Amino acid sequence: MKSKIKIGILGSTGYTGVVLVKLLLNHPNVEIAYLGSEQHVGKLYSEIYPTFFGILNKKCESTNPKTIANQCDLVFCATPHGFTKDFIPKLLNENSDLKIIDLSADLRLEEKLLLKKHRFPISYGLPELYRKEIKKAQIIANPGCYPTSAILGLLPAIENNLIDLNSIIIDSKSGTSGAGKQPKQDLLFCELNESFSAYSLAGKHRHIPEIENEISKAANKKNIKLTFSPHLLPINRGILSTIYADLKSKSTETQIHKMYTKFYKNEYFVKVLPEGIYANTKHVRYTNFCHISVLKDERTNKLVIISSIDNMVKGASGQAIQNMNIMFGFKESLGLDSVGQIP
Amino acid sequence: MKSKIKIGILGSTGYTGVVLVKLLLNHPNVEIAYLGSEQHVGKLYSEIYPTFFGILNKKCESTNPKTIANQCDLVFCATPHGFTKDFIPKLLNENSDLKIIDLSADLRLEEKLLLKKHRFPISYGLPELYRKEIKKAQIIANPGCYPTSAILGLLPAIENNLIDLNSIIIDSKSGTSGAGKQPKQDLLFCELNESFSAYSLAGKHRHIPEIENEISKAANKKNIKLTFSPHLLPINRGILSTIYADLKSKSTETQIHKMYTKFYKNEYFVKVLPEGIYANTKHVRYTNFCHISVLKDERTNKLVIISSIDNMVKGASGQAIQNMNIMFGFKESLGLDSVGQIP
Amino acid sequence: MKSKIKIGILGSTGYTGVVLVKLLLNHPNVEIAYLGSEQHVGKLYSEIYPTFFGILNKKCESTNPKTIANQCDLVFCATPHGFTKDFIPKLLNENSDLKIIDLSADLRLEEKLLLKKHRFPISYGLPELYRKEIKKAQIIANPGCYPTSAILGLLPAIENNLIDLNSIIIDSKSGTSGAGKQPKQDLLFCELNESFSAYSLAGKHRHIPEIENEISKAANKKNIKLTFSPHLLPINRGILSTIYADLKSKSTETQIHKMYTKFYKNEYFVKVLPEGIYANTKHVRYTNFCHISVLKDERTNKLVIISSIDNMVKGASGQAIQNMNIMFGFKESLGLDSVGQIP
Amino acid sequence: MKSKIKIGILGSTGYTGVVLVKLLLNHPNVEIAYLGSEQHVGKLYSEIYPTFFGILNKKCESTNPKTIANQCDLVFCATPHGFTKDFIPKLLNENSDLKIIDLSADLRLEEKLLLKKHRFPISYGLPELYRKEIKKAQIIANPGCYPTSAILGLLPAIENNLIDLNSIIIDSKSGTSGAGKQPKQDLLFCELNESFSAYSLAGKHRHIPEIENEISKAANKKNIKLTFSPHLLPINRGILSTIYADLKSKSTETQIHKMYTKFYKNEYFVKVLPEGIYANTKHVRYTNFCHISVLKDERTNKLVIISSIDNMVKGASGQAIQNMNIMFGFKESLGLDSVGQIP
Repeated sequence: MKSKIKIGILGSTGYTGVVLVKLLLNHPNVEIAYLGSEQHVGKLYSEIYPTFFGILNKKCESTNPKTIANQCDLVFCATPHGFTKDFIPKLLNENSDLKIIDLSADLRLEEKLLLKKHRFPISYGLPELYRKEIKKAQIIANPGCYPTSAILGLLPAIENNLIDLNSIIIDSKSGTSGAGKQPKQDLLFCELNESFSAYSLAGKHRHIPEIENEISKAANKKNIKLTFSPHLLPINRGILSTIYADLKSKSTETQIHKMYTKFYKNEYFVKVLPEGIYANTKHVRYTNFCHISVLKDERTNKLVIISSIDNMVKGASGQAIQNMNIMFGFKESLGLDSVGQIP
Repeated sequence: MKSKIKIGILGSTGYTGVVLVKLLLNHPNVEIAYLGSEQHVGKLYSEIYPTFFGILNKKCESTNPKTIANQCDLVFCATPHGFTKDFIPKLLNENSDLKIIDLSADLRLEEKLLLKKHRFPISYGLPELYRKEIKKAQIIANPGCYPTSAILGLLPAIENNLIDLNSIIIDSKSGTSGAGKQPKQDLLFCELNESFSAYSLAGKHRHIPEIENEISKAANKKNIKLTFSPHLLPINRGILSTIYADLKSKSTETQIHKMYTKFYKNEYFVKVLPEGIYANTKHVRYTNFCHISVLKDERTNKLVIISSIDNMVKGASGQAIQNMNIMFGFKESLGLDSVGQIP
Repeated sequence: MKSKIKIGILGSTGYTGVVLVKLLLNHPNVEIAYLGSEQHVGKLYSEIYPTFFGILNKKCESTNPKTIANQCDLVFCATPHGFTKDFIPKLLNENSDLKIIDLSADLRLEEKLLLKKHRFPISYGLPELYRKEIKKAQIIANPGCYPTSAILGLLPAIENNLIDLNSIIIDSKSGTSGAGKQPKQDLLFCELNESFSAYSLAGKHRHIPEIENEISKAANKKNIKLTFSPHLLPINRGILSTIYADLKSKSTETQIHKMYTKFYKNEYFVKVLPEGIYANTKHVRYTNFCHISVLKDERTNKLVIISSIDNMVKGASGQAIQNMNIMFGFKESLGLDSVGQIP
Repeated sequence: MKSKIKIGILGSTGYTGVVLVKLLLNHPNVEIAYLGSEQHVGKLYSEIYPTFFGILNKKCESTNPKTIANQCDLVFCATPHGFTKDFIPKLLNENSDLKIIDLSADLRLEEKLLLKKHRFPISYGLPELYRKEIKKAQIIANPGCYPTSAILGLLPAIENNLIDLNSIIIDSKSGTSGAGKQPKQDLLFCELNESFSAYSLAGKHRHIPEIENEISKAANKKNIKLTFSPHLLPINRGILSTIYADLKSKSTETQIHKMYTKFYKNEYFVKVLPEGIYANTKHVRYTNFCHISVLKDERTNKLVIISSIDNMVKGASGQAIQNMNIMFGFKESLGLDSVGQIP
C-alpha cells in the first residue's frame, strides 16, 4: 500500500485553513504533516478550534520554508493576499518537487510571470476548464470564490454562443466568511446581522480581471468587459450569483436548460437543477457542489442564470482538494462527496 | 383644537398591521378606533403582541363594514390580496365620506375600474410622484414594497433621460416580513436562516406590471418591459434593489449624482447618499426613508443604482401614513421622523 | 463480504429524517431501502431537499407496514410523537426479526409495557449508560435531545456523589430545529429571528420525566425531582444546558474536572473540555459529540456544568445511528466521526 | 418657554453612544450640543452612521474637558470602563454645576469614594430603587445591563420575603451589543452567528459585586452571595435573565404573581406580564421596558423569574435618559415611550 501524501497548510487557522483541515482529516489518502499559523505558534490546534478537541492533537508551527518544504509533498497556501508571490519561490528552492496549491489571489493573474521565472508548470485551478493542465501542474492558482460561481454559470452560455458577450451583468451575494477572520469593525456581528449592502461596485472589485480573463479565453475573444456587483449577506457561508445577459439565440428556455445539462453531464460537482427548482446557498453549503438554474425572460429576451456555491468549499478549500485529487491521480471527489447540512 | 381623526385598521394583527399600530400610537393627530382581526376576535391586542402590554388596552374585532364605516374617518386595509376589491365598496356604501388607504395590491392596477364604478377619487399612493392627486383622493392604492424601491431609484434617471429604457434590470433582495405571517413551511426559521435564494424569476412576480406601469408613465412611453429578480434575505426587514441600465448620457458619475441629489432635494423621505457611501438596509430599517446610491461603471457604461427601504415602512405602513398625512393636510413627516435602530 | 444492511426511515422528510438520510448515505455498511413520507408520496427525495440532487435518486413512499417490514433489516422511526406506539407492533407482526430505533418519545417511558406485551428486548438508547442492553436489544427508545445533554452532564457528578440530588437545576437553550418542520406561526423566521424566550417552565416540559427517570436510576434513588427550563435560541441546531447543583463534596474544581475526565475517558463521543475552554453549540454542531465543561463556584459552593450537543445528531439521529452500530456490532463511530463545520 | 438643556455625549460613536443620540433626537426638551469621539474627530456623525444622513448634521469632536464642561448642562459618559474615574473630576473642575450620567462601571462600586472627594451628590441610577436620590443627585452611576435585569426581577421577591437569599441563581443571556464595538475576533459575525455559549462563569463576571451590593441593601443583609452565569446570544439586542431561588413562602403562583404586580403597579417601565405570557427579548427590544414573568415550580418549590430588557435601552442609554428626566424634573417617560419593533 502506498503511503499517504504529506500535507502542509500555511495559514491553517484562518477560515479557508480550517475548512482545509476539516476536509483533509476525512480524506483517506493524506496526512496532515504541518499546520502553519504565525499568530498561534506552539498552541494546540484544538485550542483555537475546540471542535477538533480529542480528534486532532497537533500544534501550530511557524512559517519556516525549509522545514515545510522538507516534510511535505504538497503545501496549501491559505495565506493573505500578497504573501505567496515571494514565499513560493523559497519553498521551491528548498524542494523542487514540492507541489503547491495557492488559495490566495497572488498567482491568478501573474501566472505566466512566475512560470517563466521558475519554469514550474502552473495552472489556474478550475477543474471544469483546466483538468488536463492541472493533472500536469506543479503549482495551482486556486480560483477566487466569486470567479468560480460566475465562470461556471456562464461557460455553457458562451460555449453555445447564446449571449451577447458585452451585456453580461453579475450580481453576486456572498456570506461573510469570504471577508476572513481579521478583526475589523465592519465585520462585527452587530454590524452585519440584520443588514445587507453592496460593496466595491462599478468595476472596483479585484475579482473582475480574474473573471474577465477566463470568460475572454473561453469565448476566444479579447477584453470582454462585464459588470460585477458584490453584496454581503448576513450568513456565514455561500455565494449566489444572479447573472444576466442579452440572448442572441432564439432557443427556448427548455432548449437552453438542455444545453446546460449536457454541458455539465460529466462534471460531478456541477449540477444543473431541474427546471422549476432554484439554486439556493443552503443546498450547497458545506459541499463542493455548484448548483445552477437557468431561465429565459421571454419578455425582455434576457438569459438569467443562478449559480450557487459554498464560498469556502467549491469557492476555496474544496476546490483546492479537488485540484489535489487531480494532481495525484486520486478519484476527483475523494473526501468531497458529502451533501449539505439540513436543516 | 380639532379632535383626533379616528382610525380603523383591517388586518391589524398581520405584519403591516402591527407596524401601522405602532406608528399610529406615536402619531399626535390620530386615535385608533378599530382593530380588525378575523383570527383573534375578542382577544386583547397585547396578548397577540405583548410589546403593547400596558400601552394599548384594546381588543381585536370582527370585520363588519357597518361598524367600521361608522366609527372611523379613515380605514387602512392591511388585508390579504383579493379582499378589498369587494370590501371597499361595502365600506363606502355605509359611509361615503370614509377615506381608505389600501395596502393590498387589489386597487393598484384596476383603479380606473373602481373609480368609474364608484366615482370616488383614487390615487396611486407614491407621494414623490402623485402628491397632488393624493391630496384630493379619497382612496389610496398604496404601492408595493418592491415597486417603491425600484421606482424611486429609477425616476431621476428617467426624468434626466440618462438611460436606455429597454435595458433596465432590477435585482431586488427583500427581508422575509414581506412574505407575511401565514404559517408556511418555506418561511420557517430553520428554512430561511443561513439561506439565500431567488424566486419568481424571469417575469413571474406580480409586482412587475406595477413597476412597468409607473415607469412607463414617468417616461411617457408605452409598454416599457424590464427584468425583475426578487430574492429572499435572511433578515426580517429591508429591501435593497440593485438596478442596472445602459447609459445613453455621457454624464460623469459626479454629474449623475448631482442630478439625483437635485431631483430629490425637496423630498424629505428620499435621501441620495454622498458619493462613496452605499445604501444599506440597516440604515433605513424601521424608518420611512429611501436611501439611494448611484454609480457609473465606466468600463461597461452602465448606471448602477442602489435603492434601499424598509419594506414594512416606506414599502408599506409608513408610506400609508405619509399618504394619510397628505390627505388630511398634516405635516408629511408627522409620526414618521424617526431614524433607524443602531446597532 | 457481508451485504449491507437494509434501512427504512419513517418520517424521512422531517428534520430528524433528513439528518438520518444524510448520515446514512456516508455509512459504509448500510443501504437506504425505504424512505417514508406520507406528505410527499411519489416525489423524488431530491425535490424536497435539492442538496441530494444527483446524489440520491429515490422516491418517497407511503407507510405500509408490510412493505416496510419485508424489505428492511432496521427501521428508524422519525415520526411525530404518538405514532409508533401503535405502528411498531404492526411492523413486528410482519417481521419479528426487524430491528427498530424509535426517535419519538413514545417508548421512552412505557418501555416495560411494550416489552411485556411483545416480549421483544428493548432498551433506552443512551449508549454511555446502556451499551450492554443496546447490544442485545431489538427495539431502541432513542433518547430526547434535552435529556441527552442533561443526563450526560450530570452522570459523573452523580456517580462521584458530588452533589445534593434535590438541588438540580437545568437551564437549557435549544436551536429551533427541535420544534420540527410543521408550519406554525410561532416558528416563522420573522418570529424567532432576533428573539429569545423560555417556554414550558416550572415543570411543564414533557422531557422532565425522562430526565428524572434516568437520573434517579443512575443515583439509585427514587423520585428525584429537578427544575428544568427550556429556552428557544435563534439558531438552527444545538443545545447548551447550564446545570446547577449544590456541592456536597469538598473537592476542588481541578479534582472535579479530573473525575469528569476519568468518567468519560473511554467514551469517544463525550469530551470533557480542558479547564478554561467552555462548551459552545458551534463546536459540536453537525457532530455526534457532547462537549462538557465543569466549574465550581467557590463563592456559593455550586457545581456549574455546561453540556452541549447538536440536538439533531447526538440529540437524535446521530445517537440513533450510534445505537444501530452497537446493535449490529459495527465500530460505534462508523459514519459519525466528522468534526463540526467552522466557520 | 424654557430653553432646551444642552447635552454632551462622550463616546458618542460607540453602541450606547449611538442609542443615546437616537433617543435624544426625539426628546423634546434637549439639544445635542457636543458629540465626542476620539476615533472620528472632525467626521460628520452621519458618515459613521448613515441612518442620520440629512437628519443630524453635526461633527464628532475631541474630548476636551473645558469645552465640554462649558457648553453642556449634562454630560453622558458612554466611554470604556476605566475612563471616567479620572475624567469626571476634570469636568467638574471646569463647571461645578455640570450634571453627569456615567454609563460606564467606574462609579458604580466606588461612589462613596468619589462622593467624599468631591462632595457632589451621587446616586446609583436605578430609578425603581433610588428615585429620590436621583432627583437630588448631580452624578449618576448608571447601572449595568445584567444588574438591571437581575435586580428588577428579584426585588419583589426580596421585599415580600419569599425566597432563601442564599439560593439565588441568575442564568442570563445577552445579545452581543453588550460587548461593544471594538473589533475583536471573538465578536466577528462568523464567530457568533449560529453559536451560543457561556462566559465568565463561576463568580468571574464583573457585574456580580454590583448585583450583590444592591440585593444585599434591598434585603437589609450583608454579603449576600449569588451564582451568576452570563451567556452570549446571537442577536444584537436584549437580555433575558432566568432567575432561580428556593421558596420560603407557601404562597401560590397566583399569589406571588399578585405580589409582583402590586410591587410594580406604579412603575411605568416595569411590566409584570399576565400569567401564561412569557417575557421575550423581542417584546422589549428598542424600548425602556422591563418585562417580568414569575412562576412557581411546585415540584421543586423553586421560584422561577424571567426578566427581560433591551440591554442598550433599559440596560444602558434609555435608563440614562430616564435618570436625566428625573434629575431635571421632566416626565419620567419623556422620549422613552415607544413600543418595540415587530416583526
